[in-house]
Amino acid sequence: MINKLAIIGTGLIGGSLAQALRKADYASEIIGYGRHPENLQRAVDLGILDIGAVSVSQAVADADMIVLSVPVAAMKELFIEIAKSVPTNAVLTDVGSIKQSIISDASAALGSQFENYVPGHPIAGAELSGAEASYAELFADHRVVLTPVEETSRTAVDKVSAMWVAAGAQVVEMDANSHDEVFAACSHAPHILAYALVDSLVRGDDHETIFSFAAGGFRDFTRIASSDPVMWRDICTGNRDAITRVLKQYRSDLDRIINLIAEGDAAELEEIFKRAKHARDTYMLNKLPSR
Amino acid sequence: MINKLAIIGTGLIGGSLAQALRKADYASEIIGYGRHPENLQRAVDLGILDIGAVSVSQAVADADMIVLSVPVAAMKELFIEIAKSVPTNAVLTDVGSIKQSIISDASAALGSQFENYVPGHPIAGAELSGAEASYAELFADHRVVLTPVEETSRTAVDKVSAMWVAAGAQVVEMDANSHDEVFAACSHAPHILAYALVDSLVRGDDHETIFSFAAGGFRDFTRIASSDPVMWRDICTGNRDAITRVLKQYRSDLDRIINLIAEGDAAELEEIFKRAKHARDTYMLNKLPSR
Repeated sequence: MINKLAIIGTGLIGGSLAQALRKADYASEIIGYGRHPENLQRAVDLGILDIGAVSVSQAVADADMIVLSVPVAAMKELFIEIAKSVPTNAVLTDVGSIKQSIISDASAALGSQFENYVPGHPIAGAELSGAEASYAELFADHRVVLTPVEETSRTAVDKVSAMWVAAGAQVVEMDANSHDEVFAACSHAPHILAYALVDSLVRGDDHETIFSFAAGGFRDFTRIASSDPVMWRDICTGNRDAITRVLKQYRSDLDRIINLIAEGDAAELEEIFKRAKHARDTYMLNKLPSR
Repeated sequence: MINKLAIIGTGLIGGSLAQALRKADYASEIIGYGRHPENLQRAVDLGILDIGAVSVSQAVADADMIVLSVPVAAMKELFIEIAKSVPTNAVLTDVGSIKQSIISDASAALGSQFENYVPGHPIAGAELSGAEASYAELFADHRVVLTPVEETSRTAVDKVSAMWVAAGAQVVEMDANSHDEVFAACSHAPHILAYALVDSLVRGDDHETIFSFAAGGFRDFTRIASSDPVMWRDICTGNRDAITRVLKQYRSDLDRIINLIAEGDAAELEEIFKRAKHARDTYMLNKLPSR
């Protein structure tokens, strides 16, 4: 058990982590800080936090573990703020869904304390938001990716890993570049493709009719186009190289399929669709449904 | 109540229609025919059909209503076969998810009987298949699109419409060209885009890692890539012009988004994502979830 856990940003992820770690008796005290005083107070009222701090510096003072669970675009300012008052022995980690750009932000801000920062990314759904939506089981049997760099202290990695295990998660390590490539493919690109289809259709004259006939397949395909636009804007700018690469490959593959359709090449289309179905059935049928 | 209903093709759609119409006391006798004797026998054993016919000509003899519920690519041969023995007063309809090419098949095969054929498309999920998966409520509160042409008899349209209403569906009429454009956009294109993404990823070296980290968003986005490849091959070739148009527009819109990401144009990306989220929330949140 650690003495003091500080969680900066008490939305779905931060709030759920606080609840999971309270259940696990991970810390004697859980202190939180968030930009919106009323949200923070609600997290205290709901029993998610022991204390709501009035400032970042109050939250991180004497903390053994500091978790940054704010939007990716807010990380940079937060690292600069934290650097002013972070205790020498505190371990820091974050929950951002891109890693290389956040590592750069941390490196620039933290100075000699950078070795105590462990980049992290819990793979857990985030369609709902806010402390009210949080729950202790969010991370149970979900994976958390840690992407330590050369300077990262092994002791710090072990401590962050132990925290996530206490929250019920499975911890895997990966280098940050691979992380950003993998998630550009399995998460970032699909979100952009879904946004792109809905936007492409809604700008057409006949979109009312089209949407009125859209059924279950379209509904599921476009579910992720209901995600937070600001969050995805920031992921696009934060992971632009990897995302651009995946999308350019996709566009080139789509070009080929469009040509096959225009030429009526039934045999080749069948081969592509069969290969895709086989892969999807092989890799995805055992995945948990989305909540 | 009609005397004899003939259903050619007793899979999910044909089997479910038979069950819904039996419940509604729509016909004195429901006879079915399918290519696979064992499947047909199972539909009889399950009480879905009164009689399993040994041939198309036996099924359609004396029928008042004939429903063609076979894959779109099998319609052409079936119309030719039916034309040999269709009773003069029988009404025909089909359930194919593309309409213009099936209308051409019917027109070429049916001769003077073409006026008794009403092109139809029930908008009902078809991820599972076979008579075993069929159930009487498949069409309840779902829409059925009828796309009569100039030659189509109004009496025939009314009879087909009454049949679908008896099955619990809501009937709408549309011209066949509009139908094929609308469904290219809301159904055909999303299927192809999902197949394309899975195939694009699975051909990469790191696909095992990518799929292992794929979560709920990817799972829902790619669900339709688990659909029947042969059926979608045939839809692509049967509705190639409309599908190609939608996909080319999409590719051009995607190109623009890729450029915005590469240039880091956060403001414009946010605007696109916001517009898409608004449309998706507006049009899709009240839709029934897929079964």
